[in-house]
Amino acid sequence: MNHANNLALLTDLYQLTMAQSYFQSRKLEPATFSLFIRNYPPHRGYFVCAGLEDVLRYLVDFAFDGGSLDYLHSCRLFADEFLDFLKGLRFRGEMWAIPEGRLLFKEEPILEITAPIVEAQIVETFIINQINLQTLIASKAARCVHAARGRALVDFSLRRTHGIDAGLKVARCSFLAGFSATSNVLAGQRYGIPIVGTMAHSFVCSFEREIDAFRSFVASFPDNSTLLIDTYDTLAGARSAVEVAREMAARGGRLRGVRIDSGDLASLAREVRKILDEAGLSDVKIFGSGGLDEYDLASLSEANAPYDSYGVGTKMGVSADAPWFDMAYKLVEYNGRPVLKLSTGKATVPGKKQVFRFADGRGQLERDMIGLRNEEVAGSEALLQKVMEHGKPVGPRPSLKEIRDRFLQEISRLDEKTRAICNPRPYPVELTPKLSHLRDKIEEQVTQTQ
Amino acid sequence: MNHANNLALLTDLYQLTMAQSYFQSRKLEPATFSLFIRNYPPHRGYFVCAGLEDVLRYLVDFAFDGGSLDYLHSCRLFADEFLDFLKGLRFRGEMWAIPEGRLLFKEEPILEITAPIVEAQIVETFIINQINLQTLIASKAARCVHAARGRALVDFSLRRTHGIDAGLKVARCSFLAGFSATSNVLAGQRYGIPIVGTMAHSFVCSFEREIDAFRSFVASFPDNSTLLIDTYDTLAGARSAVEVAREMAARGGRLRGVRIDSGDLASLAREVRKILDEAGLSDVKIFGSGGLDEYDLASLSEANAPYDSYGVGTKMGVSADAPWFDMAYKLVEYNGRPVLKLSTGKATVPGKKQVFRFADGRGQLERDMIGLRNEEVAGSEALLQKVMEHGKPVGPRPSLKEIRDRFLQEISRLDEKTRAICNPRPYPVELTPKLSHLRDKIEEQVTQTQ
Repeated sequence: MNHANNLALLTDLYQLTMAQSYFQSRKLEPATFSLFIRNYPPHRGYFVCAGLEDVLRYLVDFAFDGGSLDYLHSCRLFADEFLDFLKGLRFRGEMWAIPEGRLLFKEEPILEITAPIVEAQIVETFIINQINLQTLIASKAARCVHAARGRALVDFSLRRTHGIDAGLKVARCSFLAGFSATSNVLAGQRYGIPIVGTMAHSFVCSFEREIDAFRSFVASFPDNSTLLIDTYDTLAGARSAVEVAREMAARGGRLRGVRIDSGDLASLAREVRKILDEAGLSDVKIFGSGGLDEYDLASLSEANAPYDSYGVGTKMGVSADAPWFDMAYKLVEYNGRPVLKLSTGKATVPGKKQVFRFADGRGQLERDMIGLRNEEVAGSEALLQKVMEHGKPVGPRPSLKEIRDRFLQEISRLDEKTRAICNPRPYPVELTPKLSHLRDKIEEQVTQTQ
Repeated sequence: MNHANNLALLTDLYQLTMAQSYFQSRKLEPATFSLFIRNYPPHRGYFVCAGLEDVLRYLVDFAFDGGSLDYLHSCRLFADEFLDFLKGLRFRGEMWAIPEGRLLFKEEPILEITAPIVEAQIVETFIINQINLQTLIASKAARCVHAARGRALVDFSLRRTHGIDAGLKVARCSFLAGFSATSNVLAGQRYGIPIVGTMAHSFVCSFEREIDAFRSFVASFPDNSTLLIDTYDTLAGARSAVEVAREMAARGGRLRGVRIDSGDLASLAREVRKILDEAGLSDVKIFGSGGLDEYDLASLSEANAPYDSYGVGTKMGVSADAPWFDMAYKLVEYNGRPVLKLSTGKATVPGKKQVFRFADGRGQLERDMIGLRNEEVAGSEALLQKVMEHGKPVGPRPSLKEIRDRFLQEISRLDEKTRAICNPRPYPVELTPKLSHLRDKIEEQVTQTQ
């Protein structure tokens, strides 16, 4: 499970074969690569930038260790002088990026790297791997937060995230996008995210009677018990919870909440609320869970189902309706020469870029323009910042909490129609006249040259 | 990125709160948990077991280190005597499992753990996390292999797998299910999987002319070059590849192949094949890629598109049409008492189990029965084997290559209609009369008790 020593090998083989060819033909001039998302998946109208912190750490640590070089040697593909070169290779380039937690729209560069082409190319695989995953999850989680209309959400996804790394990153990125807590204890330790838990059906089943399970649990957690009431019959479970809550009250304690994890969540919550209220337990919270996503949360909000908070698991943790983004890392400039590709459906825009964001007088987001890095676009905010120079991080390294605050601030400035869970209104993004002109010019040149 | 020291914390908080409650109420009797998949996603008719090796390693290494205990202490949820208990806690239980690479059908236990309830419960999250991911990917990859009808497949998914761990496990599980190689260099090192690579569009773009890129690459890899020909115009690219192949032949070399990554893959391959054949280059292979999944591969096979092999990436690597399984780890016996839950849509079957597989006279798989662990079912093969006893692995630990061979052997025994990419015929699975009777009896008891 220890990947720390050889993350440089976590790459596609062609990055290394291309690197050898560049090295052998002495093509070591600077190249600029641009990372962006080509298209929205269905029902997506915005993305949430995430993953930059892990990319910075990877670039700082980038190096091939002895075991990695031995393995590459054993592949019989690489020349000794190239392996010597790899041994000394470190990332010494420059990176510009949109900070984590800011909104991103399609075709906008989320980051751009400028470095000798071998360095800039070889890091592609890891960069896409992390930015794609973290942006994917932050974007999905943001939709859940919006749909829940102020009710607190807890990340419950660890058991069905795609592996260990995803489990940690999902906890990080759902918190970044406004979740309140996670069930993932290691993520709690690593990222300082509040951790939350209730109980499982197996706990209830392990006792002969449901109410005995409830009594045992509240004895261990007198201040912090949420009882799972749907193992056998949800309404009977609610009545048992009332009985236990009264026993607690008699001892001076208080039941925190009950959890419903199956069945018709909206109508069950109403019946359970009634049972609790009629027993004078209106301060006992109802926690909902069970395969929820933003579409379910929107329905529950619409129905005014009396939940106080929700656990959101699998479908958020794998971004079930859109488990990947069409994210690409493309060469846009080589040795000062803007370049592009024309592949069907995958054409690119040349040159080093900047994204300019316009707001109205009240601070509401109006539109973005993608332009050249060195353009000045009056009345706009330039989003890409220099975050690395000569291989060293520069500028602020915000905490996760600061990133979360920045996200919550910016999303409040986005039009409700663009935030819609279904069929969002497209946010206006266009190229500046200068960039548009450059693209047309290079496209013409390329077509004539080939 | 180093998770090795504190994987015990990679769990849901409720596993630890339940554990404290069990510990404090001295509930330390043995429990049996059963892991299974409740339902097929659309178009799935079978699963491929995978992930057991990582579970064995996790259980052997399971322990809370000092930093983990310090963190748990800081949460102010846990009693000191419970944290002392956790400090000494190791997994000392028993595990039965269906070996990796064997076929699995819905509701069949893929593994069962028997241990004191704290031990058996606390490991749930990691076990589901790994078995869900690896079985998911092996099952998806098996469909791709079937659809490709004998053409070799290469895993190209690393850049869009959900993080680092998933990238490694996808390489492992796609190879297990019959893929020939991966582009993932670290997976090549770790698992001994053959690694394969071609070139990227950026390589072509970094040269002023496409043909210069081709010449540079073949100079570095005279025996092992696959040229990417779709950066600007696929047919023009094919003609440039012909020119370079002739230059190589004049030097005594040979171009290995060309790759098409965009456009109408079937018709482009036919035109490219014609260009190559007319140039006397019928031994130059055509490699296809570009967002392929089993549905695309089936269409290309159906159309007899002249590809020799394919790169299969994102949609396999995230199992895009079914990015999670409805996999559950449920208590089925506590202290010798069979248990179940009745939650709506999530009812379980009690008792320690075994799966019995029946084949016809030619070895073709006919049907399975799920029965009690200690049943003898004549004429069938019992699938669950004891793989761990007193916390130590027992029995064979097959190599990845052996698991792959076992899978390829067993899948060849499964009816074509059950293997179908769309609308597969359900494979017959039923409960033995003994298990069926036990379920009815316990259900009645539970209903009366609560």
